[in-house]
Amino acid sequence: MTSLVYLDYASVFVFALTGALVASRAQLDIVGFVFIACLTAVGGGTVRDVLLDRPVFWMEEPTFIIVASVAAFIVFFTAHLLESRYRSILWIDALALAVAVPAGVAAAVAMDATWPIVLIMGISTGCFGGLMRDVVCNEVPLVLKQGELYVTCAFAGAGAAVGLLALGQPLPIALLGCAIVTLALRTGSLAFGWSLPVYKSRPPRV
Amino acid sequence: MTSLVYLDYASVFVFALTGALVASRAQLDIVGFVFIACLTAVGGGTVRDVLLDRPVFWMEEPTFIIVASVAAFIVFFTAHLLESRYRSILWIDALALAVAVPAGVAAAVAMDATWPIVLIMGISTGCFGGLMRDVVCNEVPLVLKQGELYVTCAFAGAGAAVGLLALGQPLPIALLGCAIVTLALRTGSLAFGWSLPVYKSRPPRV
Amino acid sequence: MTSLVYLDYASVFVFALTGALVASRAQLDIVGFVFIACLTAVGGGTVRDVLLDRPVFWMEEPTFIIVASVAAFIVFFTAHLLESRYRSILWIDALALAVAVPAGVAAAVAMDATWPIVLIMGISTGCFGGLMRDVVCNEVPLVLKQGELYVTCAFAGAGAAVGLLALGQPLPIALLGCAIVTLALRTGSLAFGWSLPVYKSRPPRV
Repeated sequence: MTSLVYLDYASVFVFALTGALVASRAQLDIVGFVFIACLTAVGGGTVRDVLLDRPVFWMEEPTFIIVASVAAFIVFFTAHLLESRYRSILWIDALALAVAVPAGVAAAVAMDATWPIVLIMGISTGCFGGLMRDVVCNEVPLVLKQGELYVTCAFAGAGAAVGLLALGQPLPIALLGCAIVTLALRTGSLAFGWSLPVYKSRPPRV
Repeated sequence: MTSLVYLDYASVFVFALTGALVASRAQLDIVGFVFIACLTAVGGGTVRDVLLDRPVFWMEEPTFIIVASVAAFIVFFTAHLLESRYRSILWIDALALAVAVPAGVAAAVAMDATWPIVLIMGISTGCFGGLMRDVVCNEVPLVLKQGELYVTCAFAGAGAAVGLLALGQPLPIALLGCAIVTLALRTGSLAFGWSLPVYKSRPPRV
Repeated sequence: MTSLVYLDYASVFVFALTGALVASRAQLDIVGFVFIACLTAVGGGTVRDVLLDRPVFWMEEPTFIIVASVAAFIVFFTAHLLESRYRSILWIDALALAVAVPAGVAAAVAMDATWPIVLIMGISTGCFGGLMRDVVCNEVPLVLKQGELYVTCAFAGAGAAVGLLALGQPLPIALLGCAIVTLALRTGSLAFGWSLPVYKSRPPRV
């Protein structure tokens, strides 16, 4: 399953960048950068693997941890060059989401999971790494930001993959479609404010 | 184990209602409602199943996810009818607790676990879904509310089940006793302020 | 593996003390003390065991839960005697870290894990119990405290164990070295302010 392996590496690297950027906002030292970067990078895939009861991907192949650590070092020495670290987190996180969702889908498909499980594994792999990062670092979780699409993008992307597979498309096409849909929705939400109607109670409530 | 399955469905539905109500307080969109509802609904049982190293219950039977999603939709379109959403969360959560604790007990008993494990599985299944909901949504976790019984209710309920089983009662009776004790203590705490003495340091401390 | 068992008991007891002290700051009742104490005490080891896909240590041997509960009772009735509960948490947590890191290392070595996994298991076992305690109780996680060594101590301790094993030292020596390095660095950081340079952006950034 080479496409799965490449997706996992890409997802780990990009999520590690976002984790390290959040660590920079918390003014941690280099070991703190590596810790948060690794937590973010492998968090979603770890949840996926524990739920699927398969060996945790980075335990089999510790190179993933090295990749995440390299990303942490890069950010530690270059983050001051960024115009706005928070905007960078949002955009890089969008990219990470668009890589992690297909990685989750691919892992579930490789285990011949039914389509609802494929859907949920895509969403979980995409969302839980960033969620752990935000909960541990006391940032407002991106999944909770009002008036922005986040879980929705993961859901639509995973849904696109399931649809393409159901139409008989080969796996790489389905994963590509998944990544494109996820990225398009998320970046559209960031750039143009695309959103779904949020819950609004009529008068303010307790 | 039909009683186990019914308990799991009931617990998933009722916890999903509380998750969706918390999502309404955070003003999320419908996908956010579904996400938080599912997290709350299956969180406790997932912890239970991972600890017991048995297949995660909703991976085997994705209908659970559909049930939780239906609960999220119901709340999305009806929450504005409630007098106070926060009070509703407390009372519905009490009901969910009273269903989830026996669900955890039943799962552990089905695996011939020893009684301390039965006790812990009851408490974990009851408490961890709501705890994840509150941590992710930045609410004060119900398990931490001062001057209220919460973990205590789960503990007493699971203890009642263990006691009834030790007295030779059949499982359904033990589960019923568990639910009644949990619900009575929790609703008593909400309605009449029942509580255990809390820790109080003499002079204020740093 | 007797050394592993003793380390696990010691780590459970000492982490339970810190959990109960945090519970005292949140003014919980005795059941809340036991809940937070158990979560803190077995949290790190549970993550370790789930990742290593071995049976969770306290499920096999519920005495661990009793040990953690005893620690919670001790703190409930004696915490008011402490000069400063927060300082006590920091110092007892340092001791717990210095016991939990070798416990994690020992578990990984017992499974013939490769050295990167040994390293990560040491760090995870050491850090995740306290992290769960702090996230659940809304304290600033110790792993995030600026200008203090925390994850770094776990990293150095686990690294010392890996180095000593690579030099052909027997396991007990490696575990002892691990504990000493972890404790020395952490207490040095608490007492003398030892730290690594933290990330500082030049002008304030958004």
